[in-house]
Amino acid sequence: MIPHLTTALSGPLLEIEHQFLAHQPAIERWFRHWFTEHMPPFYASTDLRNAGFKLAPVDLNLFPGGFNNLAEPFTPLAVQALQVAIERVCPEARQFLLIPENHTRNRFYLSNVFHLQRLLRLAGVEVRVGSLLPEITEPTPFETPAGTLVLEPIVRRGNRVGLADFDPCAILLNNDLSAGIPAILAEPLEQIVIPPPQAGWHRRRKSHHAACYAQVANEFAEAFALDPWYFTPAYRTVGGVDFRHKQGVEALADAASDLFAEIRREYAARGITETPFLVMKADAGTYGMGVMVVKDPVELRELSRRDRNKMARVKEGLEVTQVIVQEGVPTFERVDGAAAEPVVYFIDHYVVGGFYRVHTERGPDDNLNAPGMHFTPLTFARPCSVPDFTAAPDAEPNRFYAYGVVARLALAAATREIESLNESHSDVAATPLATAR
Amino acid sequence: MIPHLTTALSGPLLEIEHQFLAHQPAIERWFRHWFTEHMPPFYASTDLRNAGFKLAPVDLNLFPGGFNNLAEPFTPLAVQALQVAIERVCPEARQFLLIPENHTRNRFYLSNVFHLQRLLRLAGVEVRVGSLLPEITEPTPFETPAGTLVLEPIVRRGNRVGLADFDPCAILLNNDLSAGIPAILAEPLEQIVIPPPQAGWHRRRKSHHAACYAQVANEFAEAFALDPWYFTPAYRTVGGVDFRHKQGVEALADAASDLFAEIRREYAARGITETPFLVMKADAGTYGMGVMVVKDPVELRELSRRDRNKMARVKEGLEVTQVIVQEGVPTFERVDGAAAEPVVYFIDHYVVGGFYRVHTERGPDDNLNAPGMHFTPLTFARPCSVPDFTAAPDAEPNRFYAYGVVARLALAAATREIESLNESHSDVAATPLATAR
Repeated sequence: MIPHLTTALSGPLLEIEHQFLAHQPAIERWFRHWFTEHMPPFYASTDLRNAGFKLAPVDLNLFPGGFNNLAEPFTPLAVQALQVAIERVCPEARQFLLIPENHTRNRFYLSNVFHLQRLLRLAGVEVRVGSLLPEITEPTPFETPAGTLVLEPIVRRGNRVGLADFDPCAILLNNDLSAGIPAILAEPLEQIVIPPPQAGWHRRRKSHHAACYAQVANEFAEAFALDPWYFTPAYRTVGGVDFRHKQGVEALADAASDLFAEIRREYAARGITETPFLVMKADAGTYGMGVMVVKDPVELRELSRRDRNKMARVKEGLEVTQVIVQEGVPTFERVDGAAAEPVVYFIDHYVVGGFYRVHTERGPDDNLNAPGMHFTPLTFARPCSVPDFTAAPDAEPNRFYAYGVVARLALAAATREIESLNESHSDVAATPLATAR
Repeated sequence: MIPHLTTALSGPLLEIEHQFLAHQPAIERWFRHWFTEHMPPFYASTDLRNAGFKLAPVDLNLFPGGFNNLAEPFTPLAVQALQVAIERVCPEARQFLLIPENHTRNRFYLSNVFHLQRLLRLAGVEVRVGSLLPEITEPTPFETPAGTLVLEPIVRRGNRVGLADFDPCAILLNNDLSAGIPAILAEPLEQIVIPPPQAGWHRRRKSHHAACYAQVANEFAEAFALDPWYFTPAYRTVGGVDFRHKQGVEALADAASDLFAEIRREYAARGITETPFLVMKADAGTYGMGVMVVKDPVELRELSRRDRNKMARVKEGLEVTQVIVQEGVPTFERVDGAAAEPVVYFIDHYVVGGFYRVHTERGPDDNLNAPGMHFTPLTFARPCSVPDFTAAPDAEPNRFYAYGVVARLALAAATREIESLNESHSDVAATPLATAR
């Protein structure tokens, strides 16, 4: 059940972890206070990269799709946290309609939905699964590795959404709404929709999350006199890009050069000898699509047709016009010799488990969220909430505690992000997305 | 990690368990609703007896003293629940003063305090331990099986209680206040005291809890069309008893006869061939003191001097004047061949773990909370919150789910009990303690 962390970690990060442990009760209080002031998402997941010299979240998902990868021992923790989350959003909840992605050919994704339905049921809610797919015209069973999942056609009656014989009190989205809010879910709706539809990828931007994260990480660092660099990836946002017609590529390369220079400066200031790299991502991309690793800005001026095509469109065939270029954080973690990155799962503001995303054919500088990846659900020895004070800071439970801290900073950033998406009724371009440095 | 349940359970209880499982989401909702309306205790534990034909709580402790007996895998669950509990009572909490019992010679009890302090610290609170013992005049280390526990002298400054260099925002009692509220904790106090001091054994009465339990169990049974008898122990309360001077003994024997008759009637109605027995308990007793098993009312008329002495005084040397005579529920559970009863632990309204109390020299009809008992912390395979729908009702996870349901009914009863203790400012005799049947 324990991953092989072959890295001999030393230097600044150990110091950061040491600081996390020294401040542990105060850090927990900081988060307690944060999540009293800011409504946590119902659920979320975050991808971390641990470089030894830097530990940072590189993505935060508000529609997590890997509940099937959580180890069985995490189940009670997830059920308890779901009970808290349900009490918070809708204490009288009896029935949830769960709306998944349309990936009916992905058995792993269906297995995720099966597990999520099971967890919600264990938490005491009757749950049925409504599909947005037009071809689902009657209850249709799908076999998953975990059991049979039944998808049913969603029915709208006036301002209520449900199934033919099911009138739920809440709608839980496990669909990231990349293509926008479907007509069947359009406002006004009498039922609560979780997460709020405006937090879907049709409005979310990675750069907006990154800006919120940088703010939150700074506030956290200030509270504990830490250097936020050790857990904050630098980034630039570039708009007006058209990969097919090679427009905006110069601006992109300039932004990348600028970011490379910043990373080199910061590395030098801290005695880090690693070679910097960047990760370019479609700003509204998800499911690992529209992601490219950049080792030199020159590559951006000379993108192959294949790479341009890859970057041009993301999920649901949407055109990419804005990208985020993010400081690459190499992963020094290995599971059975392969590059691995931890994924931390939340329900409400509780860490309820995690797993490693492992890719045997990719290196420490690569995007691991790519075809060929697999998941090792059992490698978290313990949930991140339990540090071991008697062990050295690099002992495994404490590394997991540090993961839990940094992951929760990403979750805290998501609360601020969602608040500003809720406040803003104007177009995306007018939201604080433009806070790129 | 799995206990040997040698009982071949069949008949009514399986039916009850089946019903629990069939109603599971609705039952969870029932409890969710209950604990939205009624403030759950910060922590609690309850002793269950499973007779195969009857599964019932026989005691509820608001100052649980066995955190050292919880298996390590329960730690994350306990920490998460503590975070919920802390947010509920005092979200800005930084520092807790924990006040334990004065049992400094009981290393197991000290180990409980050590574990509790550790759990609270993991949940993000700074905790120090203040002792009511006059001989603790400076910070004093005590060795426990788990580590060193430091007891410090409590200091009162005006209306605040703390330590010489520690001004906590909340006081957590792990002392059941059998002897009353000590002067140093007398009102008015600026800090919140958890649980409320009026819930100490100086005011609590087992018969009051039993009355609240009977009410709650009836309401629950009505909601799901169940027969409450299968999870409610019958009882009688007898006051004006003086064991040393053999006063009130006739009334006691009469009450016992009456209760025996009731049990025989109920057994006969349900085809149960077991021989009934009773358990007589001091109404304000705790720590297993002042408890006696009664097989025949005649025994009560012919109590030996030894038994009378045993019943006459409880913890802190207090005189017993009122007793509860409770329907005995035999335990059909065995761990390694010895009689065992499950103890379920709560934090807030969450089941966070449990263990078996085992006594190798006692039988299924005996009080197991007696010298010579031991605890097997690992025998709960899973927390009670996770039933397995795919398994038969008598599969182990489901048995544990049934334990979780019945245990939570006892917790729900405790909320009602505490509410009425809070409301009542008059003497104990005037409180609803007199609701005995």
